[in-house]
Amino acid sequence: MKKIRVGIVGASGYSGAELVRLLSGHPMAEAVVLTAETYAGQPLNRLYPGLGPAGSQVMTSLADSRAALAEMDLIFFALPHGEAAKLAPGFLETGRKVIDLSGDFRFPDPGEYEQWYHSRHPAPRWARAAVYGLPELFREHIPGAQLIANPGCYATTAVLALAPVLKAGWVEPQSLVVDAKSGVSGAGRKASLETGFNRVSENFALYKMAGTHQHTPEMENTLRRAVGTEVRITFSPQLIPARRGILAVVYGRLRERLTGAEATRYVQTFYDREPFVEVWDEGRGWPDLACTVGSNRCVLRVAVDERTQTLVAAASLDNLIKGAAGQAVQNMNLLFGFPETTGLPVLGMLP
Amino acid sequence: MKKIRVGIVGASGYSGAELVRLLSGHPMAEAVVLTAETYAGQPLNRLYPGLGPAGSQVMTSLADSRAALAEMDLIFFALPHGEAAKLAPGFLETGRKVIDLSGDFRFPDPGEYEQWYHSRHPAPRWARAAVYGLPELFREHIPGAQLIANPGCYATTAVLALAPVLKAGWVEPQSLVVDAKSGVSGAGRKASLETGFNRVSENFALYKMAGTHQHTPEMENTLRRAVGTEVRITFSPQLIPARRGILAVVYGRLRERLTGAEATRYVQTFYDREPFVEVWDEGRGWPDLACTVGSNRCVLRVAVDERTQTLVAAASLDNLIKGAAGQAVQNMNLLFGFPETTGLPVLGMLP
Amino acid sequence: MKKIRVGIVGASGYSGAELVRLLSGHPMAEAVVLTAETYAGQPLNRLYPGLGPAGSQVMTSLADSRAALAEMDLIFFALPHGEAAKLAPGFLETGRKVIDLSGDFRFPDPGEYEQWYHSRHPAPRWARAAVYGLPELFREHIPGAQLIANPGCYATTAVLALAPVLKAGWVEPQSLVVDAKSGVSGAGRKASLETGFNRVSENFALYKMAGTHQHTPEMENTLRRAVGTEVRITFSPQLIPARRGILAVVYGRLRERLTGAEATRYVQTFYDREPFVEVWDEGRGWPDLACTVGSNRCVLRVAVDERTQTLVAAASLDNLIKGAAGQAVQNMNLLFGFPETTGLPVLGMLP
Amino acid sequence: MKKIRVGIVGASGYSGAELVRLLSGHPMAEAVVLTAETYAGQPLNRLYPGLGPAGSQVMTSLADSRAALAEMDLIFFALPHGEAAKLAPGFLETGRKVIDLSGDFRFPDPGEYEQWYHSRHPAPRWARAAVYGLPELFREHIPGAQLIANPGCYATTAVLALAPVLKAGWVEPQSLVVDAKSGVSGAGRKASLETGFNRVSENFALYKMAGTHQHTPEMENTLRRAVGTEVRITFSPQLIPARRGILAVVYGRLRERLTGAEATRYVQTFYDREPFVEVWDEGRGWPDLACTVGSNRCVLRVAVDERTQTLVAAASLDNLIKGAAGQAVQNMNLLFGFPETTGLPVLGMLP
Repeated sequence: MKKIRVGIVGASGYSGAELVRLLSGHPMAEAVVLTAETYAGQPLNRLYPGLGPAGSQVMTSLADSRAALAEMDLIFFALPHGEAAKLAPGFLETGRKVIDLSGDFRFPDPGEYEQWYHSRHPAPRWARAAVYGLPELFREHIPGAQLIANPGCYATTAVLALAPVLKAGWVEPQSLVVDAKSGVSGAGRKASLETGFNRVSENFALYKMAGTHQHTPEMENTLRRAVGTEVRITFSPQLIPARRGILAVVYGRLRERLTGAEATRYVQTFYDREPFVEVWDEGRGWPDLACTVGSNRCVLRVAVDERTQTLVAAASLDNLIKGAAGQAVQNMNLLFGFPETTGLPVLGMLP
Repeated sequence: MKKIRVGIVGASGYSGAELVRLLSGHPMAEAVVLTAETYAGQPLNRLYPGLGPAGSQVMTSLADSRAALAEMDLIFFALPHGEAAKLAPGFLETGRKVIDLSGDFRFPDPGEYEQWYHSRHPAPRWARAAVYGLPELFREHIPGAQLIANPGCYATTAVLALAPVLKAGWVEPQSLVVDAKSGVSGAGRKASLETGFNRVSENFALYKMAGTHQHTPEMENTLRRAVGTEVRITFSPQLIPARRGILAVVYGRLRERLTGAEATRYVQTFYDREPFVEVWDEGRGWPDLACTVGSNRCVLRVAVDERTQTLVAAASLDNLIKGAAGQAVQNMNLLFGFPETTGLPVLGMLP
Repeated sequence: MKKIRVGIVGASGYSGAELVRLLSGHPMAEAVVLTAETYAGQPLNRLYPGLGPAGSQVMTSLADSRAALAEMDLIFFALPHGEAAKLAPGFLETGRKVIDLSGDFRFPDPGEYEQWYHSRHPAPRWARAAVYGLPELFREHIPGAQLIANPGCYATTAVLALAPVLKAGWVEPQSLVVDAKSGVSGAGRKASLETGFNRVSENFALYKMAGTHQHTPEMENTLRRAVGTEVRITFSPQLIPARRGILAVVYGRLRERLTGAEATRYVQTFYDREPFVEVWDEGRGWPDLACTVGSNRCVLRVAVDERTQTLVAAASLDNLIKGAAGQAVQNMNLLFGFPETTGLPVLGMLP
Repeated sequence: MKKIRVGIVGASGYSGAELVRLLSGHPMAEAVVLTAETYAGQPLNRLYPGLGPAGSQVMTSLADSRAALAEMDLIFFALPHGEAAKLAPGFLETGRKVIDLSGDFRFPDPGEYEQWYHSRHPAPRWARAAVYGLPELFREHIPGAQLIANPGCYATTAVLALAPVLKAGWVEPQSLVVDAKSGVSGAGRKASLETGFNRVSENFALYKMAGTHQHTPEMENTLRRAVGTEVRITFSPQLIPARRGILAVVYGRLRERLTGAEATRYVQTFYDREPFVEVWDEGRGWPDLACTVGSNRCVLRVAVDERTQTLVAAASLDNLIKGAAGQAVQNMNLLFGFPETTGLPVLGMLP
C-alpha cells in the first residue's frame, strides 16, 4: 500500500518534532515536508539528536515549501497560537486536508474566540467548519472532515475525566474544579525565564489561575457538546518540575449518593472499547505521570469522598502524545481509514 | 543571658536535623542532647555533611540519653508516628516541657485519634492537655503550655489559607477542597521505593486521595476551633518531584458576591501583624515553592473566579521549616518568652 | 516464522522490565516466562504501569518456573551480582542458551574474579566458556555461543570510546582516565538512602573512586582482548541526578602529534558499518544523555587538546538499553541469526 | 560601629542577588545602591520572592545611580563579561574600592586576555593592578588592594584542589586533567535554550571541551603564581542537572610513590587554619554537591590510584557563594579589616 504523504508546518517545536518521531514508525504515512523558519536548512536532528537518523531530513522555510505542501495528502500545523488561522485557509481552499494542533480552530463560535483571545478570528468560516478531533467522544465526525482542530492537552485530560461522570448526571455541572498539573513542555520550546531550569527545578508554580486561562472555554464547550449540559469549570493550571505529562485532578459535588465502586464500573464501561483509555480499579492506586509518558494512553481513576459527597477523578496522559502529536496521528488514522491505533505507542517508557 | 538547654529526640530524621540546623544559629537556646538509634555514636554531619561543624555533635541512643534529657529545659520529639505518645509522658510527668513534631498529640479527642489511626491513644490525658502550636491562630495559649503539639505541614498550609476566608463567612464550609502538593521530604528520610529518585523524578503522584488521609481531621478540627464552624474538606495530597516545600490550592464555593480585591484586602488585614505570613497583592502573580523554601514564611494569595463563584487561595511554605522545625522553634520562642522571630529565617534560599 | 520463546529470570528489576518492554515489540521472540520472587503472582505492570497491556503477564517464582524455563529457547538472567553464577549452570548443563546481564561471567579468569569480588567463582568452567557479548568488537564469536556475558553499562561506554584510539596506537595505554557519569537506574531498583530522591536531586556524587570499582578490570580486560595491549585505567564512577543514561569522558596522553580531525575521521571509519554507533563530526558539539536515552545507540565524539597533548573522547548511551537490555536483545538477534537491529530502537525519546 | 556602605552594580543576576542575600545578614556592611537595567524601578524580591522583606529595595539604573555609587565605600560589579572593564575604571579613578565578580580583571597580562577573549582589554593598567582575591592562597595581598578580581567558580574549585598537590611536587604539572561539573546557575540568569528545563532535566552535557574554555588560563596562571611552576590543564566543563554547586575531579600523574593517607595528611595540614576549607579523611566517602550548597565552604578529598599511579582529588563548593558572592564578601571582610568569616554561612542547607 502506498503511504500517504504529509507535511508538518512547524516541525522544530515540540509537537512538530514529536509528529516526526511518531510518523517515522508509521507504516502508512510519510513526513515529506518539514517547515521551520529559524532552523530552515538544518536537519531536525541537530535540534533533537535523540531522533538519530530519523531526524536527518532538512527543514525548509514555509515560503520555500508552499509548492511541495500543496501536493501533500495532509498538512499538520504545529505553530504557536494565531498562525494556523492565517496560514491554513490558503491550503484548505485548494482542498488540502489539515490537522491543526493549535487552539485556532477549537472555537466553533468566533465570538467566543474573540472574547478569550481579544482579537478577531481571521477565518471564522473555517472555525465553524472544523471538527474537534477527540476520537473518544466525537469519533464519527472525524472521517469526513477536511479540517480537524486537534484538542489541547489540558482539555483532552479534563474532558476524558469529566465526560462520563457528567453524562451519568452524578455531579453538579456548575461547580466543577479542574486542578491540572503540566510538565514544562506544555509551554513550548521557546527560551524563557519561566521555563528555565533554575526557575523550574525544585519548584511548583501556578499561573492563569481562577478562570483566566483561555483553555477554560475549550473544556466547557467540549463537555457541553459531549453531554448536552452547560458546565462551569474553575480551572487551575500548574507547572510541575517535569518535562512531560499532565495530571488533572477534577472535583464535582455529588447530586446523589454514589459509591466509588459504582462510579468506577460506570466509567470503565464508558471507555470499554477505547484502545487508548485505561480506567483503573479502586484497589489499584492512582495514576501518576510515569504510567502514560511516552504512550498515547490516558489513564483514569475515579473515587467518591463520602464524607464530603464529592466525586474526585484523576487523569494522566503525555501532553505531547495523547495531548498533541499522538492524538493528531490518531485523527489522521481515522481521517484516512487506517486502523485507529496504527503507529501509535500503547507502551510508554520505563523509568 | 544563659541559653536554655534542649534535647532533640530523633535528631537523625529530616525534622530533627533541621532543628539542629536552626538551633545552631539561635542565640538563646542550645541543642545539648541529640538522640538517634540507628546512628547512635555518629556525629550528625556524617548523615548531613552540609551541617559542617554545626553537626559535629555525636548522637546517643535514647536509652543512654534519658538522664541527660531529664535535665533539659525543653525536649523536642521528632519521631515517626506513635512513638512520642509512648515516650513523652515519662518526661512530662517529671515536669519537662515538650514540643512534639508528630501527629500524636494533635487530636484533643482520643476517640477521633482512634478512628483515623485505628489504635488507642497511649496517653489520652496528655492528648487532651496538649496545646496546638499554630501561633498565628492560637498564640495566646502557647506560653503557658507544658506540651505543645506542633502542627503538621499540610494542616499549617491549609489552615493558614482557609482560616480568614472561613472567618469572614464567605465560603460554604461543608464543601472545601484542599488540593495540596508536597515535596518528597514530607515522607521522611526512610528509604522506600515510593521516594526513590527513579520513581519520583519527572513524575507526579497522588496518594491517600478522596478523604482517606489522616491529616484531614487535623485540618477540620483546627479550623472549627479557629472559626467556630463545622467544616468538611476533600483533601488530595500529592507528591511533587521536589525535595522541599508545600503548595496548597484551596477551593470554596462562595455564599455571596465578592471580588478578589475585597478578599485580598481582608486576608491582608487578618495577617497584618504576623511576622511569618505574607499575603500577596492581586497583581503579583501566585506563590510558588521557591518563594518560601529555606524560610519560616508562609506566602498566601487569594482570588475569586467570578464565572463559577468560587474562591481560590494558594499557600506556600517550607514543609520542614514553617511546616515542622521552624514552627517548633517559633513555639519554643513563645514558650520561653523570647521574641517570636528569634533565630528563624525570614529570608529563604535563592535558586 | 515461529517466534523463539524466551524466559527472563529477574523480570521485576530495571533490566528485566526493559527486556520485557523491548521484546513486546520484537517480531521474532516472545517473553513467555517471567520470574520474580518478591512480586511473584503479580503482573509486571503493577510495578511498571507504563508498560500498559504489554506488562499484563503474571510473574512467577523461580521455583515455580523451572520446568517452563527448561523448555525455553533462551533464558535471560537479570539478577543482582552473584545469583546467575549459581543458577545459570543448571540450565546450561541441559543445553539451554543463556544471556546473563550481570557481571558474573564477564571474567574469563576466575582468579581475577576472586580478586575483585573477594569470593570464589561458583562456576569457573562456564566463566571460561562465556562469550563477551559486545557485538561491535566481538561479533564473530556470538552466533556460536551458548552463554553470553552481556557487558556492563560502564564497560560498554568506555570500551566503545577507547577501542579505536587504542587500536590506532595514539595514546599511552597505561595512563587512561575514564570519568564516567551514570543515571540512578545504574544502581538497580532496590530502595536505598543513596538513591532516594532527597539525596540525589540537585546533587552529584562520586563513589568507588580511584580504581576501587569492580568494573575497572572489565574495561581493561576487554580492551586488552580488543586491541592486544595491556591497558590501565583510572576509573571514576559518578552519579548524575537523572534516571537513565551514561556519559563517559575519557582522557589519554598522546604519543604522537594528532589533530582532532584526523582522530574523528579514523573513529568514524572504525564504526562505519555499525548500526548502533554514531560518531559526531568536530563541528557538531558534544553528545549529551538526551541524544541516546530510549535508543540502543551509542554516540561518540573525539577531540584533541593540542595545548596539553591529550586525547579527549566522550560516549553517551542509555545504560538500560545499549548498556543492558538492548545489547542483550542485540546479542539474542546475533545468536539466533535474526537481523541484528530487529526490535531495537534507533530512535530515542524527545525531551 | 558604623556599617560600610556598598553598591552592587548588576543586582538582578544570580551573583548580585546572592550578594544582597548575604549582605542582608552582615553586621558591618549594608547594600545601599542596587543597579539593574531591565528591572530598574522594581524591588529585587519581585525577581527573587525568596528574599522576602530583605529584597524590598528598589533597583535603579546605572545612569541614575552614578552619584550615589560615587559615595560608596565599596562597589561590587556583578555584570556579564566585558562590562566591568569598561565601567569600573571610572569609579576606581576617583578612589572607590571595587570587587569585580567577572573575569575582566583576572588576567594580569592583557595579551593573554586578548588571546582568550579575542578583544583588547579596555583597561590594561587596572588589569595589572588588580589583586586576585583567592584568600586561601593570596590572603596577604588583599587588605591593601583597591581593585579585587574575584575568582571564577571553576578556577576556585580546581585551584583549591590542585594547589597543595602541586606545591608538594607529587604530580607532573604538565598533564593535569580537570573534569569539572557545574550546576546551571553557572550560566547566569539569562533565558536560553541551553538552560531551559526541558534541555537540562535528566540530561548531562559537555561544552567547550578539550582546552577551549576561557577559564583554563585562569586556573593555569593562578596555580603558577601559587606554586611557582608552569602547569598545563585539560579542562572539561560539564553541566549537571542541578541549580547550584560545582564538583571538580582532578587527575595528575604521580612522579613518585605516595599513599592516599600521606596525601590526605599533607592537604589537611595545608588548609589547617582555613575557616572555609574542609579536607575529608580517607574513610569518609567523597564530597558531593549537597555538602557545600548554601555555605561558603569548599570540601576536598584526595586519593591515590595505586594501580595507575594517578592522584585523584575532588572539590565541592557552591558556585554562587564560595565561587562568587560569598568569596566576594570574604574579600570585602579582608579589605576592610573585618573578621574574615563575618556574615558568611559555614552551615549549608539540608536536603
